[in-house]
Amino acid sequence: MNRTEIASLGEFGLIRHLTDRLEIKNDSTLFGVGDDAAVLNYPHRQILVATDLLLEGVHFDLTYVPLKHLGYKSAIVNFSDIYAMNGLPKQITVSLGISKRFSVEDLDEFYSGLKLACDIYGVDIVGGDTSASLTGLTVSITCIGEVDKEKAVYRNGAKDTDLICVSGDLGAAYMGLQLLEREKKVFSEDKQFAPDFSGKEYLLERQLKPEARKDIIELLEQAGIVPTAMIDISDGLSSELLHISKESNTGCRIYEERIPIDFQTASMAEQFNMNVYTVALNGGEDYELLFTVPLSAHEQVESIEGIHVIGHITRPELGNYLIGRDGGEVQLKAQGWGHS
Amino acid sequence: MNRTEIASLGEFGLIRHLTDRLEIKNDSTLFGVGDDAAVLNYPHRQILVATDLLLEGVHFDLTYVPLKHLGYKSAIVNFSDIYAMNGLPKQITVSLGISKRFSVEDLDEFYSGLKLACDIYGVDIVGGDTSASLTGLTVSITCIGEVDKEKAVYRNGAKDTDLICVSGDLGAAYMGLQLLEREKKVFSEDKQFAPDFSGKEYLLERQLKPEARKDIIELLEQAGIVPTAMIDISDGLSSELLHISKESNTGCRIYEERIPIDFQTASMAEQFNMNVYTVALNGGEDYELLFTVPLSAHEQVESIEGIHVIGHITRPELGNYLIGRDGGEVQLKAQGWGHS
Repeated sequence: MNRTEIASLGEFGLIRHLTDRLEIKNDSTLFGVGDDAAVLNYPHRQILVATDLLLEGVHFDLTYVPLKHLGYKSAIVNFSDIYAMNGLPKQITVSLGISKRFSVEDLDEFYSGLKLACDIYGVDIVGGDTSASLTGLTVSITCIGEVDKEKAVYRNGAKDTDLICVSGDLGAAYMGLQLLEREKKVFSEDKQFAPDFSGKEYLLERQLKPEARKDIIELLEQAGIVPTAMIDISDGLSSELLHISKESNTGCRIYEERIPIDFQTASMAEQFNMNVYTVALNGGEDYELLFTVPLSAHEQVESIEGIHVIGHITRPELGNYLIGRDGGEVQLKAQGWGHS
Repeated sequence: MNRTEIASLGEFGLIRHLTDRLEIKNDSTLFGVGDDAAVLNYPHRQILVATDLLLEGVHFDLTYVPLKHLGYKSAIVNFSDIYAMNGLPKQITVSLGISKRFSVEDLDEFYSGLKLACDIYGVDIVGGDTSASLTGLTVSITCIGEVDKEKAVYRNGAKDTDLICVSGDLGAAYMGLQLLEREKKVFSEDKQFAPDFSGKEYLLERQLKPEARKDIIELLEQAGIVPTAMIDISDGLSSELLHISKESNTGCRIYEERIPIDFQTASMAEQFNMNVYTVALNGGEDYELLFTVPLSAHEQVESIEGIHVIGHITRPELGNYLIGRDGGEVQLKAQGWGHS
């Protein structure tokens, strides 16, 4: 039997490969594999289901991630998928695989973060499951949300001339991760070392306690704007933009100078001798919303606090490009540094 | 900080501990943690959500479980949870954590089993996610199902004098596991050894390729019977019966001679010098349905092929007992041998 290495397909290729030609059997299944969440058609309401699996050593490092924060973030990343469909998360189920290393108090910590996120975002925990694990901690969360009929926003609706918008700022979570990794390394060499994070709090917060952009969904709703395409930024702006372009059969142009970057992110990137735009494009774990709106919504969307127009959609043959401050064009590539 | 070992609470105690006093915030959440599936109230239909996490080395051993069978079984165990609510599974999402040991072909095998189960049971795969894993295979599946309003069956509805019914026969999956474990041991000592499973096919099938009892749900529906309480047998008859008794605030009496056992199970138990009733009570992984019906449904339920009346519900102060062939009474204990 041939052996094809998974790496040769890549993450998305693997999913495509595995889920190719799935036959839809129920009328209630409107949209299955291929977006942030599945859309199910139960009368009068569309239901959204998103799921995430987080593995210790791959998605998180308990050396510097407190369990409470991990619980919070585990919930948030799922909520973010539901918001990215223009829906509202309503329930989650939580399965944990736990090795003997963990105590009940540890899990209490995890759950306290989970519950805090659920309280803040108005979500119910409707299923809990725990199981022994031979190695480390496994967290699997499924989130169910709802969206008004006709209002679910997919990745495939972007049109030529649409504006490309992004919420908040980018790259901070990635710089927070770099900072934590550096301090961990120093600490492992000098146990007396006490890290000083002053002036870098925002980076840590973005990495350890991210938020999902419920507020943006609400503001768009109030403004009567339904994006033509939307996705949340978990793997980096570049990778997510290419998803939209590919699924919508378009190209895109974004402008370096318009990419929103926080001062702390820029300052930290300089310290690390990194190009801050590369960080913003490929860092990942931002959990901001990336979406497109018709050109006609320009003024309206520009007037909403926290939303930045960073470029526009083009015809597919024009490709996907970043326009530098000097006018130079660089082709966008999906080279997210984030874990999958 | 105090350290409470998880073992001191036990699996169900831990869940109770973690999910105690969760506040329900949405009208759409009718029932959360504490049954086989969560029930959500979306207009005109109740939606069921069940989830399972399967970890290599804990829930399955790839030494003797082919990946196709693992895929099939991973789906089935989730469907079984939905049937146990008297509902029909409609969609699943699947998350896999995969170590470098696995190839694309391995995952194809896994998915072929998964798809086969979905084809047979009429279920759509609506979400797929894969992620790197440092160790072994992690499978997390969430199943969404639907049930007519007023027809969801919980664990807590059993009443004094209700009949206790079970589908199929018990203990075969556990004996299949013992058989496989024995052959694995022999094989590890003698690589030339070729196991002979003739006459034991049923045991292997029950362990490696279990089915969920959709047929029983349909037969009950046709007969117009709505069970008062229902659960699927994953951890063993004894453990599941105690769930029903506890949640319904009742006791129960079941009769040894009425417990359905296949010939191969009995014969294998004898070879292993095990008490076959102990196997049937505590073996687990049967994925049969255990349910209660009013005494008035006696004749009707007895006439349905594949359903056995094994005892009846009592007042709680009478406890939970197995009545032996000799009339002796043994208190039921939850001592499932199965993994959690």
